[in-house]
Amino acid sequence: MEKKDETQHHEPELDQVVNPWQVSAKDGGKIDYDKLIDQFGCQRLDQSLIDRVHRLTSRPPHVFLRRGVFFAHRDFNDILDAYEKGQKFYLYTGRGPSSEALHLGHLIPFMFTKYLQDAFKVPLVIQLTDDEKCMWKNLSVEESQRLARENAKDIIACGFDISRTFIFSDFDYVGGAFYKNMVRVAKCVTLNKVTGIFGFSGEDHIGKISFPPIQAVPSFPSSFPHLFQGKDNPRCLIPCAIDQDPYFRMTRDVAPRLGYHKPALIESSFFPALQVYV
Amino acid sequence: MEKKDETQHHEPELDQVVNPWQVSAKDGGKIDYDKLIDQFGCQRLDQSLIDRVHRLTSRPPHVFLRRGVFFAHRDFNDILDAYEKGQKFYLYTGRGPSSEALHLGHLIPFMFTKYLQDAFKVPLVIQLTDDEKCMWKNLSVEESQRLARENAKDIIACGFDISRTFIFSDFDYVGGAFYKNMVRVAKCVTLNKVTGIFGFSGEDHIGKISFPPIQAVPSFPSSFPHLFQGKDNPRCLIPCAIDQDPYFRMTRDVAPRLGYHKPALIESSFFPALQVYV
Repeated sequence: MEKKDETQHHEPELDQVVNPWQVSAKDGGKIDYDKLIDQFGCQRLDQSLIDRVHRLTSRPPHVFLRRGVFFAHRDFNDILDAYEKGQKFYLYTGRGPSSEALHLGHLIPFMFTKYLQDAFKVPLVIQLTDDEKCMWKNLSVEESQRLARENAKDIIACGFDISRTFIFSDFDYVGGAFYKNMVRVAKCVTLNKVTGIFGFSGEDHIGKISFPPIQAVPSFPSSFPHLFQGKDNPRCLIPCAIDQDPYFRMTRDVAPRLGYHKPALIESSFFPALQVYV
Repeated sequence: MEKKDETQHHEPELDQVVNPWQVSAKDGGKIDYDKLIDQFGCQRLDQSLIDRVHRLTSRPPHVFLRRGVFFAHRDFNDILDAYEKGQKFYLYTGRGPSSEALHLGHLIPFMFTKYLQDAFKVPLVIQLTDDEKCMWKNLSVEESQRLARENAKDIIACGFDISRTFIFSDFDYVGGAFYKNMVRVAKCVTLNKVTGIFGFSGEDHIGKISFPPIQAVPSFPSSFPHLFQGKDNPRCLIPCAIDQDPYFRMTRDVAPRLGYHKPALIESSFFPALQVYV
């Protein structure tokens, strides 16, 4: 039974820390993913769900599903219910452009999203959060935009269906319907709430505190009038690494208050670092 | 001698409270404007400055100057220096559309701005903060936009030079160069800083905390590429009521770090309420 406010699931765990900016494990360096599922309040992606994907798409599930790289979810079953009834959904994933080129870890959500797009034949929006990286990494606006453009080339190379894919940079696209949804979300989230979810302090600049609504609103189809205007409020499925869960716990808390479906999530473990554990 | 960080001037005064959301005086209901000038750290607009306006514009100073309705300023002398040297400046004022029509108090900055535009022949930007009122007054996005449009009609009726005036609603205009400047400002302002200036608490929603950069950036000409692109970083003069000073103390603190002039201010007292003091 899902609690009403998922943002309450988050309690500080001293032995492992996982949030959008920091992933650190206890001794040995291994993340305890079962504990993370408990802590975040998401669900394990079990074999019966993988079998259902197999049946619905009539193709073998992606190796990242079979091998448990994507291991957790929120409401993925609802997405499959909707799909089975012929209702539409869309995919949303993103990239914070902090470096020149994508490495293998960065590619995991994109490779998996490409499979989901092919298997379910659905639209996809890809958010390049150049504003986020400008704010967190102390990059200039211009450098963040340059990295977003470089990263877009690597993302395009994954082979998405160009007739169903919209890639945008926040610096280019924020405004209009997107900005209106940002304001609607911001009104629903107190400073105490974001401090609880993300651990902000008084020394953090207000750009960081302003950012969560920006990552939230691609979950709402009305943020993309040129894609979804006139469509019947399609559901949103977000493939991502599990460190992004805090943003979407917040988003799921707000969505029904604004008349939207909660976005569903399908979440991966982290790519193992190329280092020797002794 | 101006202190480096003007935002430090603000100390809580228990006997009178003046900020963008609240104006309340001690017993008797009269604001002590001399005390306010000390508290905010701005300057009194004295007769020699008014005489200088007379000389420079070759026309009688506006009655709001002669009668002390506009009574305080920050760097207004620098604007006059620039004007005397033939350098450009522009005017920026605004309106938070919280009601259907403007009353006499609301009209004061617009009537005075119209005089400044006529006297100095300068461009003017007018910001309609429909996003602010949506966030503070619990209006819907649609209702805030409707009020902005209604208010724009009253503002236009003041008779601005249409070839030199740009009126915009935040919901329409935020994005692009404007949004980039919002992010640049937000990076320079900590949560502690805005809490000190505006008195936010943990129960305030993050829309309020995100807003100060939106009111700040019309002070920077690069926020309006269609007006000022290629122009030589013109100075900005802001006519407003003195309750808006906190926004621009923050803006003036940030401006030099981003390579802009500090905006200058010319500030009015409050329109007396139509009530009997006993």
